[in-house]
Amino acid sequence: MLSDQEMNSMNAPTVESVASTAREEAIASLQQLLGDRLSRAAPVREQHGKDASYHPCVPPDAVAFVQSTEEVSEIVKLCAWHKVPIIPFGTGTGVEGSVVALRGGVCIDLSRMDRILQVSTGDLDATVQAGVTHEQLNEHLRNTGLFFPVDPGANSSIGGMAATRASGTNSVRYGTMRENVLSLTVVLPDGRVIRTARRARKSAAGYDLTRLFVGSEGTLGVITEVTVRLYGVPAAISSAVCSFPSVEAAVRVVINTIQKGVPVARIELADAVQMDAINKYSNLDLRVAPTLWLEFHGPTGSSVKEQAETVQKIASEHGGTGFSWATNPEDRGKLWRARHDAAYADKALREGAQLWATDVCVPISRLAECITETQQDLAASFLPAPIVSHAGDGNFHVVFVLDPSEPKEMAEAERLNERLVDRALSLDGTCSGEHGIGCGKLDFLIAEHGEAVSVMRSIKQAIDPDNIMNPGKILRI
Amino acid sequence: MLSDQEMNSMNAPTVESVASTAREEAIASLQQLLGDRLSRAAPVREQHGKDASYHPCVPPDAVAFVQSTEEVSEIVKLCAWHKVPIIPFGTGTGVEGSVVALRGGVCIDLSRMDRILQVSTGDLDATVQAGVTHEQLNEHLRNTGLFFPVDPGANSSIGGMAATRASGTNSVRYGTMRENVLSLTVVLPDGRVIRTARRARKSAAGYDLTRLFVGSEGTLGVITEVTVRLYGVPAAISSAVCSFPSVEAAVRVVINTIQKGVPVARIELADAVQMDAINKYSNLDLRVAPTLWLEFHGPTGSSVKEQAETVQKIASEHGGTGFSWATNPEDRGKLWRARHDAAYADKALREGAQLWATDVCVPISRLAECITETQQDLAASFLPAPIVSHAGDGNFHVVFVLDPSEPKEMAEAERLNERLVDRALSLDGTCSGEHGIGCGKLDFLIAEHGEAVSVMRSIKQAIDPDNIMNPGKILRI
Repeated sequence: MLSDQEMNSMNAPTVESVASTAREEAIASLQQLLGDRLSRAAPVREQHGKDASYHPCVPPDAVAFVQSTEEVSEIVKLCAWHKVPIIPFGTGTGVEGSVVALRGGVCIDLSRMDRILQVSTGDLDATVQAGVTHEQLNEHLRNTGLFFPVDPGANSSIGGMAATRASGTNSVRYGTMRENVLSLTVVLPDGRVIRTARRARKSAAGYDLTRLFVGSEGTLGVITEVTVRLYGVPAAISSAVCSFPSVEAAVRVVINTIQKGVPVARIELADAVQMDAINKYSNLDLRVAPTLWLEFHGPTGSSVKEQAETVQKIASEHGGTGFSWATNPEDRGKLWRARHDAAYADKALREGAQLWATDVCVPISRLAECITETQQDLAASFLPAPIVSHAGDGNFHVVFVLDPSEPKEMAEAERLNERLVDRALSLDGTCSGEHGIGCGKLDFLIAEHGEAVSVMRSIKQAIDPDNIMNPGKILRI
Repeated sequence: MLSDQEMNSMNAPTVESVASTAREEAIASLQQLLGDRLSRAAPVREQHGKDASYHPCVPPDAVAFVQSTEEVSEIVKLCAWHKVPIIPFGTGTGVEGSVVALRGGVCIDLSRMDRILQVSTGDLDATVQAGVTHEQLNEHLRNTGLFFPVDPGANSSIGGMAATRASGTNSVRYGTMRENVLSLTVVLPDGRVIRTARRARKSAAGYDLTRLFVGSEGTLGVITEVTVRLYGVPAAISSAVCSFPSVEAAVRVVINTIQKGVPVARIELADAVQMDAINKYSNLDLRVAPTLWLEFHGPTGSSVKEQAETVQKIASEHGGTGFSWATNPEDRGKLWRARHDAAYADKALREGAQLWATDVCVPISRLAECITETQQDLAASFLPAPIVSHAGDGNFHVVFVLDPSEPKEMAEAERLNERLVDRALSLDGTCSGEHGIGCGKLDFLIAEHGEAVSVMRSIKQAIDPDNIMNPGKILRI
């Protein structure tokens, strides 16, 4: 590695001179620093130039498998010196192309930074390296009586989840990464290392840097450590499922449940198209109608029973049928199985097809309207496209089942997606509830935020003046 | 007022030339714009140059009583043109000198922007002008079955509470302003108006500008409208009080309660010194020992009964005595009265004395240690100083009862405060849980955040390059 002094004694390249030679120099220095933990092998680069989405692969020039914050800092200093782009990489489970190396550069793979640094049972928090996955953390917590609630579906890294402001099924009760990250260690675009906050539960001390880096998708720095909130494993859990005559009726139940103060832990919706796909995939005979799954957490059996009964009453007032609920783990597992199988069921709708899951979020009072109008669009399209929703948050996904190599199908998905986002924005919603902007939604971000995007751009330019951190993501710079 | 064109046709003053003449010109233009809603009267200026704290008054040059976002934008454009400082003002109930006009300038008083713009019962949110107070909002919500939970004690404006990242007694359950602001309308330092987010409950669309402006204390722009989350008024409420042999024992009960997943709505602690002051003030005979007040909210009477019983059991395991609880509003009122009277009781300890309430927050596992060591400091001091704590958050206040005109007393409070903050920081806590940095804690901010303060400074300079927004607050620029 180069020391600060050595780097200062060299002539810094200007932005204009950054070219393939600078890249080669940077990579040669990184090779010295990392040895065989720097890879230029094509399969490794290919694997890191793509996430779990439809976005085409653009491989980075090299992939660095890092082991510590200090090492990330050294790599970033070197890349900054040569003005070479840096793309942080967790598990590659994102779905808006956040890891696509649009301008080449060095991918920093954090998956080997997988140590759980501290668990405080008294404070209900844990500090982990960025590469720790949420399943790994929960496995580690198994005997503590605590758990980490945010679960975006895939077994993503907690660093990646922080970077994407991820959420998932139980955010209606426990919040998203926005609410559950207490502090971050971040390597800035010039290699300096900061910690964004102390472990105190709340603070009024200065600008909220934690929340600024949560959701910044690697464009402001590299998140290397995350302190997250934990929760006591509820002593009692019950789950319920119920189907409804319309999306409108199901959403009305969601709204009333929340208004009544029932602290529902999950409240998920699938539309009839999705239910039909699940039936086919799992050879089931569920009602092909809008369906809600619910989960209740409480300190005692009677408290979750009470919650379930309250919701059952609300459901029956809105035409809910087939309300069934379960408390023991096995029965709950069966009940949720259909929901968990949704993505597999969608994929099975067409042989060899891939999924493009859209992601909008609207005020919950507009959710039924937004879904219903979208269903009309979809009914008139040739693409199969079930809908699943984290209904308690007003968040839903249309899952296009398509062949990405078919331009006609991609164009149709794009057209429907654009109409969907326009509709969500017109209902005071957002173009992304949990997937992020990546390289797929830059124009939608502008449509949503207008002049506020210029503030985001000012911040980006202030923190990363050379635009080396994941360039081309979130902002068109 | 001057149009954009008129302003562009003039020669902009340089930073160097900003002097009293620029101020006079700006104020003359503002007078044209606002008529008698611009005041230069000494009593008005004096009243706006001070908050509810020990920080000495520094009056602004003029006070503008604004009526709309558009008007604020026009004022800001004018002040920006002349490079005249702007200090936003809500109710003046802050306690770290955020409104002190350190460099003169124009105070923008938002108290007449007091319209509730929208309440969505379906979405559980409300949009208000910045001058609406939390009591006013709750009064307005009275028949909706909803309420806004954040209550910092004083009847502060919601705009001011957002700017300070305020919290209070029931943040342990409902969160602080950080969690409860959905969106802001902000006038930027150049007069442009942005909305930081849509009304969707969650979003992964770009940088979290809402959280950046929440807690920015008027240094990045003027908050003119706020969308906040609302909650269903709990159908059942019960309160409890209990005293303990030690702060350690009381805090242990707090920790266990939270670990057990009891969704406690408030959990407040007072130390023996505070209890003695309350007894004297209210002529009561409460035990002079560390005391916890608790409040439980639930959808049914049985659910809050269960919560209270769970906590009673925990309390008795930790030597709690005199556990009493109440469910009807009158009895609950009596039970909380002592806690609500704490500040009055403190003030009554010395005739003509004023209060200086400090504010630190530590991980809850360190709370007992932090309070106990602080009590040892206080026992050796000549200043009376009770302690009250939002214990569920790890947040506590030492309330110095002093005569601000006595340098010896102020020096002693300063010395004790510095030791307190150092202690909190050494325990991974923050120098401010809810009061903010203002002009009182700039050095503590640096001690707490180190290099991260330079990131805050970069952001400030990017958004407010001329440093006209509340200069001298949060950051030493």
